[in-house]
Amino acid sequence: MSLCIVGSMAFDDIDTPHGASGKIIGGAGTYIAWAAANFVKPVNMISVVGGDFPKEEMNALNKKGVDLEGVKVIEEGKTFYWSGKYHDDMNTRDTLITELNVLDGFNPVVPEDYKQNDYLLLGNLDPKVQLNVINQMSERPKLIALDTMNFWMDSAMSQLKETISCVDVLIINDSEARQLSGEQSLLKAAEEIAKMGPQFQVIKKGEHGALLFHGEQVFFAPALPLEEVFDPTGAGDTFAGGFMGYLAQTDNTSFENMKVAIIKASVLASFCVEEFGTQRLREITDKDIQIRINSFIDLVKFDTHFETKEEFN
Amino acid sequence: MSLCIVGSMAFDDIDTPHGASGKIIGGAGTYIAWAAANFVKPVNMISVVGGDFPKEEMNALNKKGVDLEGVKVIEEGKTFYWSGKYHDDMNTRDTLITELNVLDGFNPVVPEDYKQNDYLLLGNLDPKVQLNVINQMSERPKLIALDTMNFWMDSAMSQLKETISCVDVLIINDSEARQLSGEQSLLKAAEEIAKMGPQFQVIKKGEHGALLFHGEQVFFAPALPLEEVFDPTGAGDTFAGGFMGYLAQTDNTSFENMKVAIIKASVLASFCVEEFGTQRLREITDKDIQIRINSFIDLVKFDTHFETKEEFN
Repeated sequence: MSLCIVGSMAFDDIDTPHGASGKIIGGAGTYIAWAAANFVKPVNMISVVGGDFPKEEMNALNKKGVDLEGVKVIEEGKTFYWSGKYHDDMNTRDTLITELNVLDGFNPVVPEDYKQNDYLLLGNLDPKVQLNVINQMSERPKLIALDTMNFWMDSAMSQLKETISCVDVLIINDSEARQLSGEQSLLKAAEEIAKMGPQFQVIKKGEHGALLFHGEQVFFAPALPLEEVFDPTGAGDTFAGGFMGYLAQTDNTSFENMKVAIIKASVLASFCVEEFGTQRLREITDKDIQIRINSFIDLVKFDTHFETKEEFN
Repeated sequence: MSLCIVGSMAFDDIDTPHGASGKIIGGAGTYIAWAAANFVKPVNMISVVGGDFPKEEMNALNKKGVDLEGVKVIEEGKTFYWSGKYHDDMNTRDTLITELNVLDGFNPVVPEDYKQNDYLLLGNLDPKVQLNVINQMSERPKLIALDTMNFWMDSAMSQLKETISCVDVLIINDSEARQLSGEQSLLKAAEEIAKMGPQFQVIKKGEHGALLFHGEQVFFAPALPLEEVFDPTGAGDTFAGGFMGYLAQTDNTSFENMKVAIIKASVLASFCVEEFGTQRLREITDKDIQIRINSFIDLVKFDTHFETKEEFN
């Protein structure tokens, strides 16, 4: 099935305890595209870059199966730039520089070919821009997912809530779920978010895994334990891209299939953090993914028939 | 099979954002006993209390299946007292008052009947006291597990390492595993701990679940998502008690069976945090436990046969 994604393309400059990346390719849209294209082709991408964005990068994405008709190139403009520094525990970071550049005032135009796509993933962006994309679709997609972050809750909560009310799946992290809902318990947070519109709530907990909620149903998937987290940038976007890529590939929006999508998403995110930027996502093969899915299954499987009659008599 | 446990019995006074407990019964040994006795009877308990410790409390434990021959009563002494205050997120706490009282200089005497017990759980205590108990066993137990905390790493690391070198299973939380091993990655931390002696490493992550390591094998079990964490005190002890109680009950120390023990342990800990102190542990029935184990299975189960041939061609 067809997947349309929207998200930023950027230059990032990342400082971690392991070293500095220098100026590399980043952006939520970029990570989403690299992840989703493992499962579905083409990935129809909506974004904006400046004339400084490398053509080789566009070619590499295209070769992976990403359609770039929806990526506007503003030749005289500069690409969005973000610089950040991670703390020693790699769980928190400070933003050092944000230069919106061409992202400032971004007014996405959805190409005709994308307007009937069945799956739509709105990567982290101004919720006004996300809504604008929804409104341009000629038919209501079968499934719309939205990723966002605390920045929009702080600066544009009412717009964000309006956009959220139009989507099926909200993908956010645990602290954002708490901020959005005002609830400390993630169970209660998911209930509150359901009232806002999205019938599926995906709550990412970084190294602690992810939860999927739908009504009374809950599913939990751990993150794969890693020897080292080299650079967490883009892991959440990669997760979202893997999740929707797999749903679009299988064209099945059942809770059961979403569980599998969460596992695929976790596996892709586990690759993302192993190198700076999109480096690992560019290298991985279907076999690499499969090996890690097997590790995931080993990590969580147990004999569900362990109860003997004697034990609970 | 027979289980011997050692751990403190105490009065606790707990302040949380939900309210204050007043002076209630606590102590690692108490939580361990209440948890383990759901699976194996008798639980042979080694501890010490003052003359102020309520007889009804001893009777209640005894009725649950806890043998108290190993609990020394120092009539003229006062029971260990701990007072603490939880922060708003319930994940961190400050100790307000610690009065060791009869625990100061505690010299455990293992009753003859306990000396050939097959399973031995050393609850969080001075590592010198823990080693003392090991040394009094007439035969090396089939499985020795040890729980400890950062306090002993800060104050008695070399004694702690000596004691750890004598046990099979180390049960600690994530920050303690990092402190003990000097490794940020829990995978690497488990490897380092294996070199210290314990061939099984259980790393508790509180609301984020628990990991079990054994050589190259890893198992992860989430904590059950809860509407509310009322009082986390004793959850780790309860976990350890449930874990060893189940292993003693089933008399099976395989990695596969330890996975199940981790699940049982998580379920018992999920009850513990619902009320102050041991309140919930006193109330629960085998049926309550079974219902929650079913919830656990629902939380993590997925179709492991989701891969189609097409998908990874």
